[in-house]
Amino acid sequence: MDLSLLRDLCSIHAPCGEEATLAEYLLRYIKRNSPRWKVQPKVLVGPQLQDCIMLVFGNPRTAVLAHMDSIGFTVRYQDQLVPIGGPHAETGYILTGKDRLGPIECQLVEDDGQLSYRFGRAIERGTSLVFKPNWREEEDSIQCCYLDNRLGVFNALKLCETLENGIICFTAWEEHGGGSVPILARIMYEEYGVQQALISDITWVTEGVHPGKGVVISMRDRNIPRRSWVNRIIALAQESGIDYQLEVEGGGSSDGRELQQSPYPFDWCFIGAPEEGVHSPDELVHKHDIACMLQLYQHLMEKL
Amino acid sequence: MDLSLLRDLCSIHAPCGEEATLAEYLLRYIKRNSPRWKVQPKVLVGPQLQDCIMLVFGNPRTAVLAHMDSIGFTVRYQDQLVPIGGPHAETGYILTGKDRLGPIECQLVEDDGQLSYRFGRAIERGTSLVFKPNWREEEDSIQCCYLDNRLGVFNALKLCETLENGIICFTAWEEHGGGSVPILARIMYEEYGVQQALISDITWVTEGVHPGKGVVISMRDRNIPRRSWVNRIIALAQESGIDYQLEVEGGGSSDGRELQQSPYPFDWCFIGAPEEGVHSPDELVHKHDIACMLQLYQHLMEKL
Amino acid sequence: MDLSLLRDLCSIHAPCGEEATLAEYLLRYIKRNSPRWKVQPKVLVGPQLQDCIMLVFGNPRTAVLAHMDSIGFTVRYQDQLVPIGGPHAETGYILTGKDRLGPIECQLVEDDGQLSYRFGRAIERGTSLVFKPNWREEEDSIQCCYLDNRLGVFNALKLCETLENGIICFTAWEEHGGGSVPILARIMYEEYGVQQALISDITWVTEGVHPGKGVVISMRDRNIPRRSWVNRIIALAQESGIDYQLEVEGGGSSDGRELQQSPYPFDWCFIGAPEEGVHSPDELVHKHDIACMLQLYQHLMEKL
Repeated sequence: MDLSLLRDLCSIHAPCGEEATLAEYLLRYIKRNSPRWKVQPKVLVGPQLQDCIMLVFGNPRTAVLAHMDSIGFTVRYQDQLVPIGGPHAETGYILTGKDRLGPIECQLVEDDGQLSYRFGRAIERGTSLVFKPNWREEEDSIQCCYLDNRLGVFNALKLCETLENGIICFTAWEEHGGGSVPILARIMYEEYGVQQALISDITWVTEGVHPGKGVVISMRDRNIPRRSWVNRIIALAQESGIDYQLEVEGGGSSDGRELQQSPYPFDWCFIGAPEEGVHSPDELVHKHDIACMLQLYQHLMEKL
Repeated sequence: MDLSLLRDLCSIHAPCGEEATLAEYLLRYIKRNSPRWKVQPKVLVGPQLQDCIMLVFGNPRTAVLAHMDSIGFTVRYQDQLVPIGGPHAETGYILTGKDRLGPIECQLVEDDGQLSYRFGRAIERGTSLVFKPNWREEEDSIQCCYLDNRLGVFNALKLCETLENGIICFTAWEEHGGGSVPILARIMYEEYGVQQALISDITWVTEGVHPGKGVVISMRDRNIPRRSWVNRIIALAQESGIDYQLEVEGGGSSDGRELQQSPYPFDWCFIGAPEEGVHSPDELVHKHDIACMLQLYQHLMEKL
Repeated sequence: MDLSLLRDLCSIHAPCGEEATLAEYLLRYIKRNSPRWKVQPKVLVGPQLQDCIMLVFGNPRTAVLAHMDSIGFTVRYQDQLVPIGGPHAETGYILTGKDRLGPIECQLVEDDGQLSYRFGRAIERGTSLVFKPNWREEEDSIQCCYLDNRLGVFNALKLCETLENGIICFTAWEEHGGGSVPILARIMYEEYGVQQALISDITWVTEGVHPGKGVVISMRDRNIPRRSWVNRIIALAQESGIDYQLEVEGGGSSDGRELQQSPYPFDWCFIGAPEEGVHSPDELVHKHDIACMLQLYQHLMEKL
């Protein structure tokens, strides 16, 4: 699998609230590549969707949601930083961004939970900083910051190539409280009658979920999806022969949470590759799990 | 009062996300019993409502919400359990469920906050377990798991027998983050113009709320309903002569929270019997409080 | 600037859930004063809005939200109090309210986080108490309880005098979990096509935000608004010549949170004067910051 697209996606500066940069990249990609896709989607963008993108293929029954935003840091006062989402913070991590004085490449300092930066000059208040990408590809795995969730975005873009019926949503603010999914849910339900959704996102390697053992179907996290729907997905995964693993967690959340709590009757299920080094510059995912993720999405979007 | 229906309700396996079992039981009950009700309701079910049920009687002005789901446990990896909602956990409690290998009756183990099970075989990942019901009826009281909220459901079903105008909703996921009430609120407001709701649920015996002293009207919990509406309910309770108690709490929540936060202008009030042994297998409620609860609901649904 | 209106507003008993008193005051004020306003607004009130008020001027593009409710305390059992919102509590603060036995002026007692009152008689369960207002006006500053957010309300009322196009919303429950903004958002978006909102509220003096240095534009708090929109506001503030300060916080929240999470695509930004003594009887705001706040709102409502 050619992962150069994923490498590009991982290098785009788009923390929560600044998804516009990634959205523009995606729109250019869609314009250039969609002529080769099996079905031409209707592309929904604009003020009704803020910076989100919705692609409608054929007669959709199921939606795929992939969040564009990443975790990061906001410059506060003096050299202080406040987190965007829940970044793993260690002294020495390299952060990048820019303000009116120019490009920034500085060092993160973590001291007993207090975050700050070390840089040759003061950085403008409110400037957002993200991890500097360091792409590492091995035979079996890839490693970089922001595989969560540029890999979920990549998976959705690859899925577009053969998708006949379905909706693909690129969402915002997932890492920091959400806010775009309720808008998209309203449009999907009221305008397209869609009530099923798969969350194309990245999860954790744990004592029960192992790298290289296949895509993960999450039976629950902090939220609990409707069991009858999750069972249907597991049955379809089982019949497909694709490698998959079942996850059960008490914590963690996703765009699924906002579908769950919206005024529209959505069934949702989180399905994604597991990673090590969550929310750090060193997120690591096995290639086999990426391949299984895409295959399972292709299978499910046809069968559901 | 014949409580055999309540006894049946308490024994149904329906933790958050698996309300379908209870919903099917309720639909059978409604089909069998509604011919004897004073007014025949319109029964709303189906994919628009997920596993919830809405009964519309006459020209509704006020809705009653009773949540079907219970707290419980999900099997994680090895012998680990993660909670569904906030169960009270003690080593030795008996849990039941089933997986593909057959029925399960195992023991809960609590060790410094870590939850696990003890059973003769491994239980399938993702299996849900609930307390084994142990129904104990005395002259003045009943005791069992899941009076919260099968008693709220029971109260709503009894109310149906004489209800002329109103909506009865059986809701889902209340114990674990919610998710069904916003859907129901939209339908109630947009299709029926209903803006008033009573939460038929079970509350706590405390230093200010005593067993056997009557149904509880909650003036606030973690959420604060509109005072003018609560005052109106208290005035109606006062004129009715039915035994009631006023509750004031800083914590605790209910389906009322989701009405409060929905995009629809609902007034809501929590009204229910108090119990001891909250979220344990030994929830205890006084019969007098159950009787007062039903009487007050009958009075309020007529007067509001 | 004549601040007698603000002084009146600060003395009205209207904690979360009891906004009706303030709403009635505002409706009388609007009726009496609107004939002198540049444009006559359409006044939306009634059951669709609960106790909120919406004023629609001309062809609105942007809304201003000011919350009417204040923090306070609810009488629980015996002499216990539970907080409404997050009040700063110190033994000796004077609280006022009334119950069926008459007016109340009692003393707050704080003991290791436990709150109670000291008064010559028992106070009725559920009674709400608020800080007794003690208005102190100096040449440069004012000090009283509830400048948060009666000053935001005052700012909105002053803005009405010259407003040509826009919506002014007086909201409820902001200090305690919210609940009215989703309703208003639905109406603003669906009936008026409005998608932009300014949060007229009070923020904190910190090491980066100084009293008397101008109105505060918050770039983020616990929630993160869309950066492109915040940048547009900062650029307009810059060109206006009005004194302003930029704020960056990791915590704190406002009515903006509920716009962010609503099913409607709102851009929002918190803009308000900073105060010392937050949520205490001694909230202090500089007059220069009040003046700058009103000027910036006037400028933005014209330019956005």
